[in-house]
This record gives sequence, C-alpha cells and structure tokens, in this order.
Amino acid sequence: MKLYNYFRSSASFRVRIALEVKGLPYDYLPVHLVKAEHLAPGYADRVGDTLVPALQTDDGHLLTQSMAIIEYLDETHREPALLPGDALARARVRALAQMVACEIHPLNNLRVLKYLKHQLQVEDAAKDAWYRHWVRKGLEAFERQLGLLDGERQAAGLAPSRLCWGDMPTLADCCLVPQIFNGRRFHVDMDGLPRTMAAFDACMALPAFQRAQPSACPDHEA
Amino acid sequence: MKLYNYFRSSASFRVRIALEVKGLPYDYLPVHLVKAEHLAPGYADRVGDTLVPALQTDDGHLLTQSMAIIEYLDETHREPALLPGDALARARVRALAQMVACEIHPLNNLRVLKYLKHQLQVEDAAKDAWYRHWVRKGLEAFERQLGLLDGERQAAGLAPSRLCWGDMPTLADCCLVPQIFNGRRFHVDMDGLPRTMAAFDACMALPAFQRAQPSACPDHEA
Repeated sequence: MKLYNYFRSSASFRVRIALEVKGLPYDYLPVHLVKAEHLAPGYADRVGDTLVPALQTDDGHLLTQSMAIIEYLDETHREPALLPGDALARARVRALAQMVACEIHPLNNLRVLKYLKHQLQVEDAAKDAWYRHWVRKGLEAFERQLGLLDGERQAAGLAPSRLCWGDMPTLADCCLVPQIFNGRRFHVDMDGLPRTMAAFDACMALPAFQRAQPSACPDHEA
Repeated sequence: MKLYNYFRSSASFRVRIALEVKGLPYDYLPVHLVKAEHLAPGYADRVGDTLVPALQTDDGHLLTQSMAIIEYLDETHREPALLPGDALARARVRALAQMVACEIHPLNNLRVLKYLKHQLQVEDAAKDAWYRHWVRKGLEAFERQLGLLDGERQAAGLAPSRLCWGDMPTLADCCLVPQIFNGRRFHVDMDGLPRTMAAFDACMALPAFQRAQPSACPDHEA
C-alpha cells in the first residue's frame, strides 16, 4: 500500500496510527500541503477532495477520507481490531472519533486558517483565539463524553477504560491523539481534561503511536 | 426509539432519512437550537457533545453523532442496507458522507456562524460569503469525486449510479441531501454540479426523503 501523506496533517496521522497498530507496511509518499502539492495535476485529478491522506491499495484503488480509510483497513485486516465487536460499542467509538473529526478538526485546518487571515483579514491573535476556542470546547465535550461512557461501562460490568474505549487502540484514539498534538502546537490549554489526557498518554506509551507521530515521518520539518 | 431533533439541523435530517428509509418508527423529541435547549440541564448532562441529533435506543442508550447513529441503525436493522456489502464500496460511501460531514457542514453550523458574527465582528455579507465559499468548494469536490467513482464503477462493469453510489439510498445520500437543503437556504450557486444534483433529485423523488425533510417535521417553522 502507498500512503499519500503530510507529516503535520492530523488526518494523515490518524491513518498512520491505524497502519502501525495493525503492523501493515506501506510506502510513505509525501504531499507538501504548504507548497500546495495536493492541488497539483497528477494528485488533484485522482483525488476528488484534493486532500491528504489518500491510501492507494495494492490493487490500485485510491481511498480518501481518513475515517473511511481506517474502517476499510479494519474490515480488510481485522486483527488487531480498531472497532469493537458489538454495535453499541462501535457506535460509541465512532461517535468519539467523529467528535474530533467533525466538530474540532475541520475548523482548524490550514485552508480555514488561511481564509480567516486572507479573506476575512482576521488578526493573528484573533485567529489563534479561534483555533484555541474550538479545540478547547471540543475537548471539553470529549472529556464529558468519556465520563458518560465510563459510567456506562461500569453499569454494564465492563472493566474501566485506559484508552478512549477499553484497553486497546480504537478509531477514537486514532483521531484523538493527532488532535492533541495539533492543539499543543497552538498552545491550547489542556488543564482540566484528566480522562482525555490519560487516554492520550496511554496511547503514546505504545510503540505504534510513537512510530506514527510527525517527528518520525520522513518529510518531518522542525 | 426516540430522536432528539431539530427540524433545521442537517445532522438531525441525516438520521431522519436513515430511519425513514429503514421504515423504523420513532418518537420525535424537538430540541430548539436557537432557544439553546441543547445546552439546558437534562439534555446537556446526558449528551456529551450537547448537539443534536441524539438517538435514545429502546434499551435506554443515548447515541450521538449522526454518522455513528446511522451505522448503528444499519448494523442493528440491516435491510434496506445503507452501506454496501463489500469493503471497497463501503469505503467509497463513507468517504462521500465524510466529504459532507467533515469538510463542508462543520464550517457552517449555527455556533460557527455566531462566532464569526459576535467574536470576530464579521459583517453579514462576509459571513454569507464564508458560508457559500465552503459549501460551493465542498460540493465541487463532491462532484469531482462522484465523477471518479462513476468511472471506477464503469471500469468494474457495475451499472451507472443514479444516487451517490448505486440505485439505493446510502449513508452518502443521507449526508448529501441535507447539505443541499442547507445550501439552498443560503442561496449557494448549484450550477455546474449536474451529477450531484441528479443524485439529490433522485433521492427527493423517494417518499422516505420526503417524509424526513424539514417541512415535514412537527417543530417546523416557516
């Protein structure tokens, strides 16, 4: 498999985690977003959303959208599973992933920050405040939801979660960890999010997450 | 089942479509977003993201995030299926859904428009331009992706799609249709999107989509 990727892209990072957790080898094909390589012919005419990541399968299909790619990997390479076996637990994990991927990250990616700066003439301080607002509000919601789910697990007689859901990495962890990296880069206050940050720390203690992080990427820039 | 819902919420509309396509009865519990009922105790302390929709299952679990809810409904009430049977096709449908739910809709929901207006002091004209920019760019990407997928289907010897993917409603249609409704309300130019609008029209010719639309909701306001 080949992964079109940018070291700093959170969505790319999600897929790298999934590949590493599953121990699947892949070629890393860098697409430099700041140099707009994702908009160049050869990429843009094959990838409808002109975004990274895109995963080229061994039979030549080019898959887009990080969560869809991870579900594909999970369906085609089942173990270790990134989604639990029963429908309720799967809904819980997917909803956590979507709290990051639909509520936090879309407001803070590069093209949105550029629009704020260039089209809306927003000053840097206000742009940074926008960034921090959505990440902080989103993570506070995530923390509340983890608390509700911990209560639900306890009521069902399940062991307490160390990661987002249970003790093994899931799609939710694939989404949370890059968001924390991203938030830290913009100095988002992470105080008062003990359950979320404990899940993050437990993930980062795992070699798969270490191998997937931006500083381990071949196109990493300081 | 009980669906916490707001007639104008695109994410709520997605779940209503799924319920109607599957012919599943549900109680409609209105949550008035403009009156901030989603932030009131009794709702906010049970729903971590304090958003609509939330689906209460018959055994009392409160599910959040529209795409996660729809996948849950699809796993627990299999026919008619909203996701295809094979992994590649599922990845295609999920990616289309996420192109709407992760790339377009998050930039244009009520709380974001409020932030632009109140925190960033953006004038109404610039706020409307922001809205139209992201919807239009996102739908242009969606149109390109549908074109790529149509080519892929043809190469694989599959029948041409009438809806987003194939001839039966999928998760992708559940996401696309509310986005078009929403875009029309803000007068987004839909010219030059023939494949996307044909899928929309084919969906809206189906009774399930008619029954799910905002004007059919008990809390509808003109």
